Amino acid sequence: MAAPATSLPVAALRWETGRLRILDQTLLPAREAWLELRGAADTAAAIARLAVRGAPNIGIAAAYGLALEIATAPDAESISAAGRLLRGARPTAVNLAWALKRVQGAALAAPEHRRAAAARAEAEAIHAAEDSASVAIASHGADLLGEARCILTHCNAGALACGGEGSALAVAAELARRGEISVLACETRPLLQGARLTVWELRRLGIPHELLVDGAAAGLMRRGEIDAVVVGCDRVAANGDVANKVGTYAHALAAHANGIPFVVAGPTSTIDAAISSGDEIVIEERGADEVRHAGGALLAADDTPCRNPAFDVTPAQLVSALVTERGIAAPPTRESVAALLVGLP
Amino acid sequence: MAAPATSLPVAALRWETGRLRILDQTLLPAREAWLELRGAADTAAAIARLAVRGAPNIGIAAAYGLALEIATAPDAESISAAGRLLRGARPTAVNLAWALKRVQGAALAAPEHRRAAAARAEAEAIHAAEDSASVAIASHGADLLGEARCILTHCNAGALACGGEGSALAVAAELARRGEISVLACETRPLLQGARLTVWELRRLGIPHELLVDGAAAGLMRRGEIDAVVVGCDRVAANGDVANKVGTYAHALAAHANGIPFVVAGPTSTIDAAISSGDEIVIEERGADEVRHAGGALLAADDTPCRNPAFDVTPAQLVSALVTERGIAAPPTRESVAALLVGLP
Repeated sequence: MAAPATSLPVAALRWETGRLRILDQTLLPAREAWLELRGAADTAAAIARLAVRGAPNIGIAAAYGLALEIATAPDAESISAAGRLLRGARPTAVNLAWALKRVQGAALAAPEHRRAAAARAEAEAIHAAEDSASVAIASHGADLLGEARCILTHCNAGALACGGEGSALAVAAELARRGEISVLACETRPLLQGARLTVWELRRLGIPHELLVDGAAAGLMRRGEIDAVVVGCDRVAANGDVANKVGTYAHALAAHANGIPFVVAGPTSTIDAAISSGDEIVIEERGADEVRHAGGALLAADDTPCRNPAFDVTPAQLVSALVTERGIAAPPTRESVAALLVGLP
Repeated sequence: MAAPATSLPVAALRWETGRLRILDQTLLPAREAWLELRGAADTAAAIARLAVRGAPNIGIAAAYGLALEIATAPDAESISAAGRLLRGARPTAVNLAWALKRVQGAALAAPEHRRAAAARAEAEAIHAAEDSASVAIASHGADLLGEARCILTHCNAGALACGGEGSALAVAAELARRGEISVLACETRPLLQGARLTVWELRRLGIPHELLVDGAAAGLMRRGEIDAVVVGCDRVAANGDVANKVGTYAHALAAHANGIPFVVAGPTSTIDAAISSGDEIVIEERGADEVRHAGGALLAADDTPCRNPAFDVTPAQLVSALVTERGIAAPPTRESVAALLVGLP
């Protein structure tokens, strides 16, 4: 395992005196390039091409994008059009619609000359709440997994995906502060968020880690090499079914078959109480070129037909615990998930 | 789904008037380059770097490699050294040791001046038997899966891996001759045998197909889009446990959880009756660079530590049927597997 020497803070998104800057995650780890986003159109495009990604960060970016748009076009019709544009950028993460609804609601509740300020304040509140949520998730998750020494994760659920240190990776970082752990990072084909982003974060955090292909995880679980699986989530249904990056469901099956805790970490903003079960979650199907290529290299004939679902659904029965900033549903059920949301607007 | 127009025969290995030529599979699909192998050393190197691969074809290539070596050094000590060198090329496929033992035994049973001819005849017999096995496997497998319309496969178990049309892909090809089917080919990280080799074969065979990342298979099974999973095997233990390309076990778990037949196809030369269960199978761990790269592109920092098991073990309880040239063990158990081997030397 590598134990890099440095511990550098990571952030995917900066809000500086009214300017929204994002780290272009499509270029990591080769290049750290920051882009400035100025309104709804370029923010929607950045979300669609995964320059900014991760359910909570999609929500934060969209909130700021809408607030910036409202600063130049505060009439109700423009706000509604900008909201639609942003909401259409990606279909699966509920945080996107949730954050936009909050900013839109705050803006429209104010008189037209105060809408820009109200929208901006709401976006900042969402951002601050997601940062705080990360700290609480880390603490709850580490309490739950105190004994685990080798953690497997999938995709990227760190600072590049969420507020603060993230969700699943924040749990790992907290465990690393409390004791010696190592993280196995699944590369996460097709877009390699594990290889490109999670490894980059783990290196900065100074947490020992190894990279593996997605298909290797189940065999290592069967061989007893993994103590817990911890992943983020893109949308959680009312019954506890979890939509997350494609490949997650297979890890959940392997964890279940081998008696290993399978823990989903995320802020309550990712729970969609309006959706009864995972079967109702729209799974985004992305373009074939993502499958035909890896890291810029063409892998098969360039007209090879492909399937490319970006997410899959893990049924609640396979989830040991859903860890949120408001506590843990273990296991997630209609009742335990509803209990996490009591008192929320 | 693509329906390419052509149906071209595929072969990975040619034995032409005493010359062994192999298609360098590391260069596919970009380039079709044939290499001539002349003895034990270059054949062992070609097997180790996966220029020739697939459990049955490893056995065939090693048999010819040893026969070529015996033609120049027919003394018992040289034969034994050449056998050791070839046997050490890769640890997991039992066909390698099995084929070498046969050629070595045939040679040593002959007087020294007849050893070259005896070894060559034995290698040719192995090759011919594996070609015939493919035809029988295809027929048995297609009888078993007559109703299946969408077949998922992993890695490459076609003509590039086995005699004839292969094992799993031979079943798909036979189903395609009998009716309309389509094949979902998992790309098979890290070395992408699915994306590079299976797609290339399916295109030549004119069978409609789509490529997907390994992690997408389980979700599509849950959504009811797959009728059967058919894979090859690198070694089958006496109890029916199956070692196959890394990623196979996760597909077996997903098939089992979703009530989908999980079929393993391979010649009886892949069954290792001397091994009681899959836990005894040595799993080859390969170099980190295979994980750090894909199709020549670097995916993460070039010193990223990696895990890279090349195979995993699927327990017999997850296997619906083991299809061989001598019939089907459904499900594979100690008894049904032993029955397949009755009467074999």
